[in-house]
Amino acid sequence: MQPDPSSLLQQALRELDYGQQPANLYDPIRYIMSLGGKRLRPLLTLLGGQLFTDELGPLVKPALATEVFHNFTLLHDDLMDQAPLRRGQPTVHEKWNANVAILSGDVMLVRAYELLFENVSLPLLPQVLRRFSQTAAEVCEGQQWDMNFETETTVTIPQYLDMIRLKTAVLLGFALELGATLAGASATDAEHLRQFGTDIGLAFQLRDDLLDVYGDAATFGKRVGGDIISDKKTFLLLTALAQATAAQQATLAQYLGQPILDAEAKVQAVRAIYDELHIRPQTEALINEYFQAALQHLERVAAPAARKQPLHHLALQLMDREN
Amino acid sequence: MQPDPSSLLQQALRELDYGQQPANLYDPIRYIMSLGGKRLRPLLTLLGGQLFTDELGPLVKPALATEVFHNFTLLHDDLMDQAPLRRGQPTVHEKWNANVAILSGDVMLVRAYELLFENVSLPLLPQVLRRFSQTAAEVCEGQQWDMNFETETTVTIPQYLDMIRLKTAVLLGFALELGATLAGASATDAEHLRQFGTDIGLAFQLRDDLLDVYGDAATFGKRVGGDIISDKKTFLLLTALAQATAAQQATLAQYLGQPILDAEAKVQAVRAIYDELHIRPQTEALINEYFQAALQHLERVAAPAARKQPLHHLALQLMDREN
Repeated sequence: MQPDPSSLLQQALRELDYGQQPANLYDPIRYIMSLGGKRLRPLLTLLGGQLFTDELGPLVKPALATEVFHNFTLLHDDLMDQAPLRRGQPTVHEKWNANVAILSGDVMLVRAYELLFENVSLPLLPQVLRRFSQTAAEVCEGQQWDMNFETETTVTIPQYLDMIRLKTAVLLGFALELGATLAGASATDAEHLRQFGTDIGLAFQLRDDLLDVYGDAATFGKRVGGDIISDKKTFLLLTALAQATAAQQATLAQYLGQPILDAEAKVQAVRAIYDELHIRPQTEALINEYFQAALQHLERVAAPAARKQPLHHLALQLMDREN
Repeated sequence: MQPDPSSLLQQALRELDYGQQPANLYDPIRYIMSLGGKRLRPLLTLLGGQLFTDELGPLVKPALATEVFHNFTLLHDDLMDQAPLRRGQPTVHEKWNANVAILSGDVMLVRAYELLFENVSLPLLPQVLRRFSQTAAEVCEGQQWDMNFETETTVTIPQYLDMIRLKTAVLLGFALELGATLAGASATDAEHLRQFGTDIGLAFQLRDDLLDVYGDAATFGKRVGGDIISDKKTFLLLTALAQATAAQQATLAQYLGQPILDAEAKVQAVRAIYDELHIRPQTEALINEYFQAALQHLERVAAPAARKQPLHHLALQLMDREN
C-alpha cells in the first residue's frame, strides 16, 4: 500500500522535539506549529518525491524543515506587521511579547536547518543546504520589499510580481525541488518541479489578491476588502493605477493614503473603478497564464502521468475558489 | 613565514558579500560588521587550528561564520534590550527601525550557515553543522534566561552561571573546537579546547561584571556602576543578596527595584555593601578558578607548547584589566 503523505507528515509533526527550557523560548514554537494550516510546503516535498520513489519515509523530516521555516517567517512577519491574529488565534508576540517572538523565531530557523542536515544524505547535503539558504534569504528579501512598498509611491507591476515571487513562490518551488532531489530526480526534472511550484505560488498569491476584493466573505477567511482598506499595493491596485483615466485617478486619490471615514464606501468606490477597468478579468488572465505555465513544467517532468495525478489535483485544489 | 591570523581575518571580512537588494536588508549587515570589535571568535578558531596546522587559509571562512553569527546575536539582542548604542555608534534598530533589525538579523543567521557549509569538507560537515546549531540554540537560550531573570525575584548563583555560560561562553568554546576540528585535531583535543574556551568565556564575563563595579571609568568603555543602576542580577549582586545581614538586606531593598533618585548614591551604597561582604575577592577567586581550569584544558591538548603560546597569550590579554 502507498503511504499517505498527509498522515506521514501529521505523525512526524507530532513527534518533533524543538527543545524544553526556557519554556518561553520553546513553547511559542510548539504553539505556532500547532495552529495547523494546510502543511502545503512539506506536502509538496512528498508529492514531488512521490514522482520518483515509493519510499517517502526519508523525505518526511527534510519536508518538515520547509514547514518549520515557513512558520518561522510567519512568526517574525506577524510581529513586523503587528498582526493580532494568526489562523484565528493570538499571534506569538500578542500571547507572549515581541522579544519572545524574535528569539523563538531565531531558534526556529536553527531547528529548520537541523531538520535538513540531520536527514539528508551526505552527497546531496551541500546542494540542499545551498538551495535552502538561497531560498531563505530570498523569502527575507521578499518580506523587506513588501514592507518597503508600503511607503513607496511608485511601485511597478514587475516589482510587485518579483516581490510575491520572493516572499511566497520561491519556497513552494524549493519544497518541490527538495522532494525531487531527495528522491533521486535528474537536475532537469528537479528544475521543472521548482518552476512548477514557483508558478503555482505566483498564481495562488494573485488569486489571494483577487479574492480579497471579489471573494465570498463566507469562505475567504479574511475580511473582504481588507487590501483596499489598507491601501495595499496589490496587482489589482497597481494595474488600476496604471490604467485609470484622470477622473478615476482623482477618485482613487480621494481614498488612497487618506484617513478612512467609511471603510465600506472606500471598498465600494475602489471596486467600482476596478470593475470599470476590467481589473478582474485581467487578473484572472494573469493567474491562468502562471497556472498554465506551471502545468507545462509538470508535463515535462519525466515521470508516469499517473504519478503526477496527486500534484495535478493539488494544483487544481489551490486554484479552486472555494478552497 | 607563518600567516598572521588577524590580517587573514581582516582581509576576508572586507571581501564578504552579504547581498545587495533590497539595500535596507543588506546595508545593516555591512554596517554592524563594520563596527569592529576584537574579532575574538574567529581569532579563537584560527588559533585553535594553528595548534595543529600551518594551513590556516581553509579555516578563515568557517571562522567568520562565528563572527557573523555573533553579530547577528548582537543585532537582535540590541533590539530586544532597546540599546541605543553599539560600540559607540547607533544600533541598527535606531539607525533604521525595529523591522529592519529583525529581518537583517534573520538573513545574517542564514549567511552564517552559508559561510560554514560552503567551506567545510564533506566528511566534517554534519558534525560541524550539528555543533554550530546546538551552540546557536544555546546562545538563544542564554539570552532568553537573561531577559527572564530581569523580572524573576529568585535567581540562584548556579542559574546565573548557567545563563552566562549559554549566552557568552559556549560560542567561544565552539569557535575553538571548530578550529581544532577543521585542522584535524582528535576529538579529545577538540573537546579540551572547547572547555578551554568555555571556561575563559565564564571568567571573562565575570570579570566584566566585576569591572562594571570596580573598573576604571577611563578604560572600561561602559558607565561604571551601570549594572547596579539597572538592578542587573550579576554574580556580585546575587552573592551579596545571599550573604547580606538583615541590615544590609534592608539597605539593598531601599535601592533595588525602586525608582532611582540619585544614581551615584545608589552605586555608592550598593558598592559599600559589596565591600563589607568582600564580594570583590570572592568574585576574583571564582574568575581565577575558571581561568586556571581553562589553562589546565589547554595544557592537556596534545600540541607543542610553542604552538600554544598565542592562545595562552590571548587568554592572559582577555584577563588583563587594562584590556
